[in-house]
Amino acid sequence: MSLLEQTIGSIRETLDQEVLAAAKQRLADQAKPAGSLGIMEGIGARLAAIKGTIDVRLTNKRIVTCAGDHGVTDEGVSLFPAEVTPQMVMNFAGGGASVNVIGNHAGAVVKAADLGVNHDFPADLPIFHKKVRHGTGNFTKEPAMTREEAVRSIEAGIEIVEELQAEAPVDLLGTGDMGIGNTTPSSAIIAAFSGLPVETLTGRGTGIDDAALANKIAVIRKGLDLHNPDPKDPIDVLSKVGGLEIGGLAGLVLGAAAHGIPVICDGLISTAGALIACELAPAAKQYLFASHKSVEIGHKYMHDRLGLDPLIDLKFRLGEGTGAAVCMELLDLATRILADIKTFEEVGVSQADQ
Amino acid sequence: MSLLEQTIGSIRETLDQEVLAAAKQRLADQAKPAGSLGIMEGIGARLAAIKGTIDVRLTNKRIVTCAGDHGVTDEGVSLFPAEVTPQMVMNFAGGGASVNVIGNHAGAVVKAADLGVNHDFPADLPIFHKKVRHGTGNFTKEPAMTREEAVRSIEAGIEIVEELQAEAPVDLLGTGDMGIGNTTPSSAIIAAFSGLPVETLTGRGTGIDDAALANKIAVIRKGLDLHNPDPKDPIDVLSKVGGLEIGGLAGLVLGAAAHGIPVICDGLISTAGALIACELAPAAKQYLFASHKSVEIGHKYMHDRLGLDPLIDLKFRLGEGTGAAVCMELLDLATRILADIKTFEEVGVSQADQ
Repeated sequence: MSLLEQTIGSIRETLDQEVLAAAKQRLADQAKPAGSLGIMEGIGARLAAIKGTIDVRLTNKRIVTCAGDHGVTDEGVSLFPAEVTPQMVMNFAGGGASVNVIGNHAGAVVKAADLGVNHDFPADLPIFHKKVRHGTGNFTKEPAMTREEAVRSIEAGIEIVEELQAEAPVDLLGTGDMGIGNTTPSSAIIAAFSGLPVETLTGRGTGIDDAALANKIAVIRKGLDLHNPDPKDPIDVLSKVGGLEIGGLAGLVLGAAAHGIPVICDGLISTAGALIACELAPAAKQYLFASHKSVEIGHKYMHDRLGLDPLIDLKFRLGEGTGAAVCMELLDLATRILADIKTFEEVGVSQADQ
Repeated sequence: MSLLEQTIGSIRETLDQEVLAAAKQRLADQAKPAGSLGIMEGIGARLAAIKGTIDVRLTNKRIVTCAGDHGVTDEGVSLFPAEVTPQMVMNFAGGGASVNVIGNHAGAVVKAADLGVNHDFPADLPIFHKKVRHGTGNFTKEPAMTREEAVRSIEAGIEIVEELQAEAPVDLLGTGDMGIGNTTPSSAIIAAFSGLPVETLTGRGTGIDDAALANKIAVIRKGLDLHNPDPKDPIDVLSKVGGLEIGGLAGLVLGAAAHGIPVICDGLISTAGALIACELAPAAKQYLFASHKSVEIGHKYMHDRLGLDPLIDLKFRLGEGTGAAVCMELLDLATRILADIKTFEEVGVSQADQ
């Protein structure tokens, strides 16, 4: 059995229903109007059901930022040159990028992973070295990668979770991405799964203008028409119009779910990876939290398909894991709300008239 | 000159424009697509302009939860009995309430303030003892309070800021409320200022049903018809249909603005207080941040009038300062985003094609 099959097979079908019920009861008994802490209450209850305890402690927080390059940048889909991908990986390793700053604020350790950057990094650079190939093929002319490479990229993500776990059990995992041009395959992936028109799923990425957006839509249509990926076969979708870092991101979600680790996925690209994961293994959804609502218009359709409500809407359009990092503090807070707010009985406060 | 006049007179007309420009330039130069951290960028820049430095440190965070009782609860506007107000003040002092838990997570010190609870607390209870009177009058029959009491409640809020400052300079202040029945005066206040129909501004508070909501709307209409508060005179509005804790909340905003302290206002009731403050002193708005979008429908109209966008929408409807506490972490993060994310030049990353 392959690592991928084995990992999918290890994901539990249901969370701890007894702890879930106890968590809901405690939230209802707390000295506050019923449900008055909104979305945070359900998140706290789900985290409890994942961890099997009311008093969840999210101590060891990790963010993995998966990087890859994209042959489709030859078609002029991005504002930034492709050389920015390796430069930003160096920036992550140096600690000066947005995700480092926000991750640090959240008390999370951030580490980048090279899944398919078109650059050879020094072997001692403190990143996960998981290069499958030097960037994808230009999907307007050839498949982004072979089926074997697609599986390899997912398994690389699973291996990263295994390596993290071997260091110290992870309490909360955040996913992030870096890859110039990677909103293009991400929009292609949701288009392939949903069958919705490409123009309703495609946004401006890092900030392209109207003409470039029209070109980006045409490029995605061309790729889909050329390869006709099978929406029932997530590996086929990933290999034909996906990305190597997107495969890695799918693997992170599967690996986390297999180990019972809650995972927050970031923006459009991370959510494309989560979508691949959950199409392969629907039970993985139980462990998945959506961080922010990206400015990218395709993001909403991904969340709809995953049945997830994003926590915040701060008009982010960056990726890297920045939204996941912001939301780590909210998940942490949800655990404290559940465990630490006292009940009516504990503090002697009168209840509502029934 | 009264404390109120003196405080209003001390609020600066503009923030530090030089630092504001430098902050915007730094955000534009950072190694990320322009504006890609959305709302957080503008918040960081405004905090810098308030504090007069790019590297803002929000170390001493304080939350003050103002409590008061309401004569209008005789009209059956709330699901909870009025005795809950003093019980919850005891709960705040004991550290087991929602705002304590969330404030603690944000690294903020929470302290309640008695502005007008219908109960005599022990003198050594660790709260701000600022009782103006034992609850307001029932505004369907008499004014909520006299004009002098309204001024006194605002000045009590200002005094609290002075006392906090005397302990240690405050870097960030959060406001919160407790007072059974206090969504009723809050909706009355925004109705008085905006002239909008009461039914578009009135929600279910802690969770009343349809019949109780219809009654609450009728109660507010009756109070407004009886007293006809002058929207050009915020003290008149506060005294006729307001609340003692709402006066205190207005005073907190004015005191904070006078001392150059950024202040986050919480839900419907805190924002009603902020509205009184900013109608008295429009320059105070520069120091004000809206935390969350409450489930209470009147909240949006308050934010519109204040020109503020709430940061989060977690479906809270609790008050106490819980939303303000959650957002303290986001304001803190905004300061790190501005100061710590490196520029393209600092890290040698290529910029976008122009």
